[in-house]
Amino acid sequence: MRLDVVIMAAGKGTRMKSARPKVLHPLAGRALLQHVLEMGAGLGADRLITITGHGAESVEAAMRAALPAAPLAFVRQEPQLGTGHAVQQAVPALGDEGTTLILNGDVPLVRPETARALIAACGGEKLALLTVELADPTGYGRIVRDAADRERVLAIVEHKDATPEQRAITEGYTGMMAVPTRHLKRWLAALRNDNAQKEYYLTDIVAMAEADGVPVVATLAGNETEVLGVNSPLQLAELERRFQRVQAESLMEAGVRLMDPARFDLRGVLRCGRDVAIDVNCVFEGEVELGDEVQIGANCVIRNARIAAGAVIHPFTHIDGEAAGVEVGEGALIGPFARLRPGARLGRAVHIGNFVEVKNSTLADGAKANHLAYLGDATVGERVNYGAGSITANYDGANKHRTVIEADVHIGSNCVLVAPVTIGAGATVGGGSTITKDVAPGQLGVARGKQVVLDGWVRPSKNKPAKPA
Amino acid sequence: MRLDVVIMAAGKGTRMKSARPKVLHPLAGRALLQHVLEMGAGLGADRLITITGHGAESVEAAMRAALPAAPLAFVRQEPQLGTGHAVQQAVPALGDEGTTLILNGDVPLVRPETARALIAACGGEKLALLTVELADPTGYGRIVRDAADRERVLAIVEHKDATPEQRAITEGYTGMMAVPTRHLKRWLAALRNDNAQKEYYLTDIVAMAEADGVPVVATLAGNETEVLGVNSPLQLAELERRFQRVQAESLMEAGVRLMDPARFDLRGVLRCGRDVAIDVNCVFEGEVELGDEVQIGANCVIRNARIAAGAVIHPFTHIDGEAAGVEVGEGALIGPFARLRPGARLGRAVHIGNFVEVKNSTLADGAKANHLAYLGDATVGERVNYGAGSITANYDGANKHRTVIEADVHIGSNCVLVAPVTIGAGATVGGGSTITKDVAPGQLGVARGKQVVLDGWVRPSKNKPAKPA
Amino acid sequence: MRLDVVIMAAGKGTRMKSARPKVLHPLAGRALLQHVLEMGAGLGADRLITITGHGAESVEAAMRAALPAAPLAFVRQEPQLGTGHAVQQAVPALGDEGTTLILNGDVPLVRPETARALIAACGGEKLALLTVELADPTGYGRIVRDAADRERVLAIVEHKDATPEQRAITEGYTGMMAVPTRHLKRWLAALRNDNAQKEYYLTDIVAMAEADGVPVVATLAGNETEVLGVNSPLQLAELERRFQRVQAESLMEAGVRLMDPARFDLRGVLRCGRDVAIDVNCVFEGEVELGDEVQIGANCVIRNARIAAGAVIHPFTHIDGEAAGVEVGEGALIGPFARLRPGARLGRAVHIGNFVEVKNSTLADGAKANHLAYLGDATVGERVNYGAGSITANYDGANKHRTVIEADVHIGSNCVLVAPVTIGAGATVGGGSTITKDVAPGQLGVARGKQVVLDGWVRPSKNKPAKPA
Repeated sequence: MRLDVVIMAAGKGTRMKSARPKVLHPLAGRALLQHVLEMGAGLGADRLITITGHGAESVEAAMRAALPAAPLAFVRQEPQLGTGHAVQQAVPALGDEGTTLILNGDVPLVRPETARALIAACGGEKLALLTVELADPTGYGRIVRDAADRERVLAIVEHKDATPEQRAITEGYTGMMAVPTRHLKRWLAALRNDNAQKEYYLTDIVAMAEADGVPVVATLAGNETEVLGVNSPLQLAELERRFQRVQAESLMEAGVRLMDPARFDLRGVLRCGRDVAIDVNCVFEGEVELGDEVQIGANCVIRNARIAAGAVIHPFTHIDGEAAGVEVGEGALIGPFARLRPGARLGRAVHIGNFVEVKNSTLADGAKANHLAYLGDATVGERVNYGAGSITANYDGANKHRTVIEADVHIGSNCVLVAPVTIGAGATVGGGSTITKDVAPGQLGVARGKQVVLDGWVRPSKNKPAKPA
Repeated sequence: MRLDVVIMAAGKGTRMKSARPKVLHPLAGRALLQHVLEMGAGLGADRLITITGHGAESVEAAMRAALPAAPLAFVRQEPQLGTGHAVQQAVPALGDEGTTLILNGDVPLVRPETARALIAACGGEKLALLTVELADPTGYGRIVRDAADRERVLAIVEHKDATPEQRAITEGYTGMMAVPTRHLKRWLAALRNDNAQKEYYLTDIVAMAEADGVPVVATLAGNETEVLGVNSPLQLAELERRFQRVQAESLMEAGVRLMDPARFDLRGVLRCGRDVAIDVNCVFEGEVELGDEVQIGANCVIRNARIAAGAVIHPFTHIDGEAAGVEVGEGALIGPFARLRPGARLGRAVHIGNFVEVKNSTLADGAKANHLAYLGDATVGERVNYGAGSITANYDGANKHRTVIEADVHIGSNCVLVAPVTIGAGATVGGGSTITKDVAPGQLGVARGKQVVLDGWVRPSKNKPAKPA
Repeated sequence: MRLDVVIMAAGKGTRMKSARPKVLHPLAGRALLQHVLEMGAGLGADRLITITGHGAESVEAAMRAALPAAPLAFVRQEPQLGTGHAVQQAVPALGDEGTTLILNGDVPLVRPETARALIAACGGEKLALLTVELADPTGYGRIVRDAADRERVLAIVEHKDATPEQRAITEGYTGMMAVPTRHLKRWLAALRNDNAQKEYYLTDIVAMAEADGVPVVATLAGNETEVLGVNSPLQLAELERRFQRVQAESLMEAGVRLMDPARFDLRGVLRCGRDVAIDVNCVFEGEVELGDEVQIGANCVIRNARIAAGAVIHPFTHIDGEAAGVEVGEGALIGPFARLRPGARLGRAVHIGNFVEVKNSTLADGAKANHLAYLGDATVGERVNYGAGSITANYDGANKHRTVIEADVHIGSNCVLVAPVTIGAGATVGGGSTITKDVAPGQLGVARGKQVVLDGWVRPSKNKPAKPA
């Protein structure tokens, strides 16, 4: 059966106090609206129709970039005359039959199982409202069910219109519903704005359904978090923490050890093998994969990386693979204070130590760069020892060049390897050398001044401050 | 009308288990007493009279340094014979008329609007008590109001003396009050210590007011937090977190995006433009200004700095401007693992990368120092590329000297620029060079050994451990 | 009186989803079982008998390594036929008289005072059950006390068998008990498995005690935390946070100032002097000692180190003494972004600055290495100034050698000191020098190329991208 999803995303979000449209604010690294669209795409929707208004161009551009393969459509609501008016704009884009699921672009965490239950409750035949049990329902429209048939909903009563008995109802309406598309079109056409606000209310279709003998039913959301909306930076922060807690618990359920679930941030996808341990205050972004028994130390920031089994990432390590990715081999030791940048590909048992930066470089098994070093655009062989303070001068001010360091090379301390340059297998470069020409396999390459000493040299003494005039 | 503020700050604070006087312990970076004095100064007090005792000299010195312009006065209470005795010491410093506001030096978060309301309730005519609604009033003196005239307070009843009905009262006395100064002097003179503790209690003036026909009234504090006192490190930590939460919420209200309000610390003043985003676990100290759309990555520590619009501060960046300040230009990219020290002034689109330290240096627009470098006492021109591992040798062991790098210079890797030295516009310094003399504009300066190679060189082999004797 | 401790540690812990036996999962840096054994050893137990099953070899090996001096014994339970069957395996290892304390290897936080109270309640004569007051006792066996003699326990009633009145009881059984050893042996021999699960239940001995006229008594645990067990990564994380909170409060009670008790991790022992302040998000491991007025900045990770009075550890400092330890002298300034490794021994007022690594090196009073440097296997004299970017080349690719820098030496920037080498007292090494031979006291040693300049040099220009074929 055809499924259309309509997502309301036209609001300004004044309380966000932001130049950015509200639905583009990120939760866990993705725009609020993107969460909703991805969930909708996962339902197999035939069309995902976003109703835009404020910031429409940027909303549309951001979502097309984020979900290039999804069946996106965008319709504009200008001016904004209420929720019913919003959905009216979507009518030309809807199918002829099947179900229309109506969601909110600022309610990002509706779970697919909940959406599926709501769609199933509609079944193209009934008006199905998404509802929620609330600890404190103040302000919510109450769901009045039929005492004789608890499946049936008689009405949504606004808080301000509710009797004391109705106010005691803890089931509230979430603003989301699934509607038989053919009825929806008819009902939308019949909406009237003869009310104080001169707005068209979507909820007026409940009475129309009653009048038409179309059953109105309700589907309960699994928890409050999935139907919470975002109207302010404070609510956004609270929802972020709730979502992070949910993610943390889900990882722990799967066996991941988190030293503090309250100090864990995942903004993307984290796949973990067995017996992974993650210390406090780590942030994961994009797509990250951690093999069996990987240990992540405190205060690491890791984005778009694959870390193989048994690797140990010490505290204060920053890994950002951006588009190219980062790969860390089995049993590698990284950090503390290491930075791996896009295109760092480290083999088994590679060691990258403190204050070392690796970018767009391959290090074969057992290579080591343990102290204060830069490896950029380099190919490093097995068992190479790359000395403290050594630098690949990969940039001549205009172009980038590669450095090749073959297997078993020993590079001394504070060397400069001026690319393009190749250090042959088993060669040695003396400490303090600036190497501009290739060194053949097995050779010792040195480029430094001869040591001279001066006796009787007098070190500068502290200047006397000038006398005031 | 004249306003005197008396602040009780003589207590030892034994439970703090500290050599430091209790009121000098910092909350959000400022001493407890400093919070109170700053609030009092903001009220326009004619005199801020602090009653000191334990650690009096250090309290006085610290406060005179912190508030050099405020109308501070200090009186000593020795020995310490109760709250009434404490305020008696302040009598010679009080004005002849007007209102005296009595505060506690270990209750740091009274809001100015609350203090103003209390002063207004006194109006130089009534005895006004600061009270608070308590979730659990156990231990507090209860405020017994007149059933006929709810404005009037009949008595403060100590918890231990309270009847069951009185214990059910949830309005408690905070220890703070505003008193007509001319009455206060008279009442203080009449206090007696004929009680078990042989102390002079300030609260005894309530009965004197009743006896004199001076109305006693109560002003409710806005919340519990503002009247909480600090008696132990645990209470101090709890109040710190409450205050940090208040500050975080206030920033979010203004549109700042905090990834985790529970992991945010502000110890000073933070001014933010529009659409500022601050990631988890950042600490701000002193005065910090963040322009529109500035992004602060996870785990940054920033003190006394101005960061212009669009700048991105990557994770693990440490900025401390101390007295000289730090300035970061529009669209600059800083970090990760960067350190900006006092006097770092960075222009537009400057890049400071990993393991780079900048101190007392100016970098013009577009200059870059991306890797493992030190720039101290340097003037760097536009578009300069400062190579990985390069160092300004600004210190000759006795004095500091300046390095001047003019526009469009390219400094290679692992260079040493021995100050004082100037590299002219457009010049190039070859990698690995130690530059001791000026390089003229457009020149290439190189100072390094010639590369030589040795064939057949045999690398050292692993020593055999000595045989045990 | 003889004391045997029996610890049940045979369970698989399926919900941990781990290859590791459950009781080896760490809480605050030590295995769950290790917490229990250490507490038992602290009671002066004559024998600590661990009943192992899943992963028995690794459990035994880990505990023998962790507590080499404790009177450990291990017995194997295979197959696992219930708690009674588990304790039966321990019978051959038990003494002939005295008390047997039965604990759980996955309940790590029982306090010694609670265990002592339980043992005392048993006194080798009574069956003493460890019980706890529960906010929500659902699922727990309820303790039915004798209405006439509240000291006596009549029964433990399983939740599923409990009457409504019994379900209202909030005192639950913790699974732990102390039993007269001579009775225990007899009762264990009489256990039967004629129940649905065909298991031998330890709690059946309660009825046997009743039948034998042995009094059954109950000892209440001090709080819920000490009797919480670990069955899943989520429970482990929750218990970790509870324990960290307990540790944080205990430090604060003693006068330590924690900026955020919720962001503090101690995995070992932390001894603090007076007026120690610890900023947010620090992690302490192993044995750490902080002298009076030590300040630890935000985001530090410190393991096995002694930091003397007045030292300031700036943010982002990583100290790991491993087995050799690290010592930081009085008034030293360390960090930010410093790393101290095993065998770093720093004197008074030593400064170690940003991006500096120190390993197996002694720095005498007043020595400084402030920027981007590596000191490994070095002996550094008083007041030495070790320049930015300088490196001790301690490793020749096969062996490590020492560098000796005597008092008052000034090492320039970006130097390499190729060990073994000695720089004599008061000597100077020019910036950019690679020093391979000793420099005598007072000498100036320089080893660098002469500076040459080329006019008219043309810097490389940006390559044009190749045209597509």
